[in-house]
Amino acid sequence: MALTVFGVEGIPLVKEGDNIPRLIYEALEKQGQQLQDKDIVVVTQKIVSKAEGRVTKLDTVTPSKFAYEIAESMDKDPRIVEVVLGDTARVIRMKGKVLIVETRHGHVCANAGVDFSNVEDGHVTLLPEDPDKSATEIRDGLIDLTRKKLGVIITDTWGRAWRLGQVDFAIGVAGMSPFRDYRGETDMMGHILSVTNIAAVDEIAAAAELVKGKAEGVPVVIVRGYDYIETDGKGADLVRPIEEDLFR
Amino acid sequence: MALTVFGVEGIPLVKEGDNIPRLIYEALEKQGQQLQDKDIVVVTQKIVSKAEGRVTKLDTVTPSKFAYEIAESMDKDPRIVEVVLGDTARVIRMKGKVLIVETRHGHVCANAGVDFSNVEDGHVTLLPEDPDKSATEIRDGLIDLTRKKLGVIITDTWGRAWRLGQVDFAIGVAGMSPFRDYRGETDMMGHILSVTNIAAVDEIAAAAELVKGKAEGVPVVIVRGYDYIETDGKGADLVRPIEEDLFR
Repeated sequence: MALTVFGVEGIPLVKEGDNIPRLIYEALEKQGQQLQDKDIVVVTQKIVSKAEGRVTKLDTVTPSKFAYEIAESMDKDPRIVEVVLGDTARVIRMKGKVLIVETRHGHVCANAGVDFSNVEDGHVTLLPEDPDKSATEIRDGLIDLTRKKLGVIITDTWGRAWRLGQVDFAIGVAGMSPFRDYRGETDMMGHILSVTNIAAVDEIAAAAELVKGKAEGVPVVIVRGYDYIETDGKGADLVRPIEEDLFR
Repeated sequence: MALTVFGVEGIPLVKEGDNIPRLIYEALEKQGQQLQDKDIVVVTQKIVSKAEGRVTKLDTVTPSKFAYEIAESMDKDPRIVEVVLGDTARVIRMKGKVLIVETRHGHVCANAGVDFSNVEDGHVTLLPEDPDKSATEIRDGLIDLTRKKLGVIITDTWGRAWRLGQVDFAIGVAGMSPFRDYRGETDMMGHILSVTNIAAVDEIAAAAELVKGKAEGVPVVIVRGYDYIETDGKGADLVRPIEEDLFR
């Protein structure tokens, strides 16, 4: 098996109301590519959030007293803290300038995914309201245009416990299982594998990041050649239930 | 930019003393492939450990009193716990059957990477003594055989805080920087990116896992087309210093 991972070039700056499936389709056409059956379309959260209007103008935000307190202790803009808290289910860690939270979706990341890169001055983007729904809509739109069997993953770039550097993770999934479960299969020695359940969509998100870069404006990547499992799954399935989580 | 990721097929079962660079070189030759400049050779920890003799026969292990106590409370084999503790710098979490430790190398993972899949009955494999040294030796051997400019990554499969499923991580690195640092570059809006420092080698490890699978015996994967930074770095550089770590 071999994978090919390539970027979709020339997608214009996305604004509220834009049709992302059509932008992807047209950009692929311009670069002489077509989607094929079992392609996985990996889409950066940022353009999804923009298309869905998940952008907040900081001038319109009135911070709460709590947001002011946190902002002061962390040397942050209280309006940004207010936006972060609005998408936060629970604060996991607060230290120095680092604010790790569990988002409304259950994902654990810094600043609830609120971010001001690649957005107009004085604005921040929030994570999509429901990244799995966003992934499903993009997939439906692409299937309408191409009639191909596709998987779609929406990604964001997050830090990790214990390890330096960020990697891309899957936050929304459509048309494929998030996992590749080896439990119950046998290894080369005939032992039954008891624990390995690979978070395939996180690995695909990571692979896609490698061709995407951050600054170059390649917000969509195609991963071709991975024989994903076609049972429908969600990015939400990747959230470890809190009662099984030793680090929340 | 496009990536190609393909497995090296037909590597025989590895045993102590085997020459891994030669095994990779010969297997690639048989499948009609040759290494090219800037290829990244991703090698599963398991075969490195076996070649280096990092395999322990459980019959030869005498568990300490402490290992017996932990084993009893966790319903584990005390001999395996003894082996795990031998490679442990500090226990991070213990609950149910889950034992998360910081290894001698500084990496945080379950059971110090001690594992009994794809190894003879009654034996376990340990992580390589020094995965960065192992990566350097494999790279030197491959460069001798091919005269190409190469990166080498040694990987293992680990769980994560907060998220279900395992992914492959880089534990040893040679010939390339573990990171792709965007800090100081500007985004599409001209803002200076202040935080993004991508753990590129972890993303490459993840991408490689997708073609490797667990049960199929493809312990080496080539990642081609990633323009890594040629400054020498180490897997050890990925360990977040404990004083900056909010989860240790």
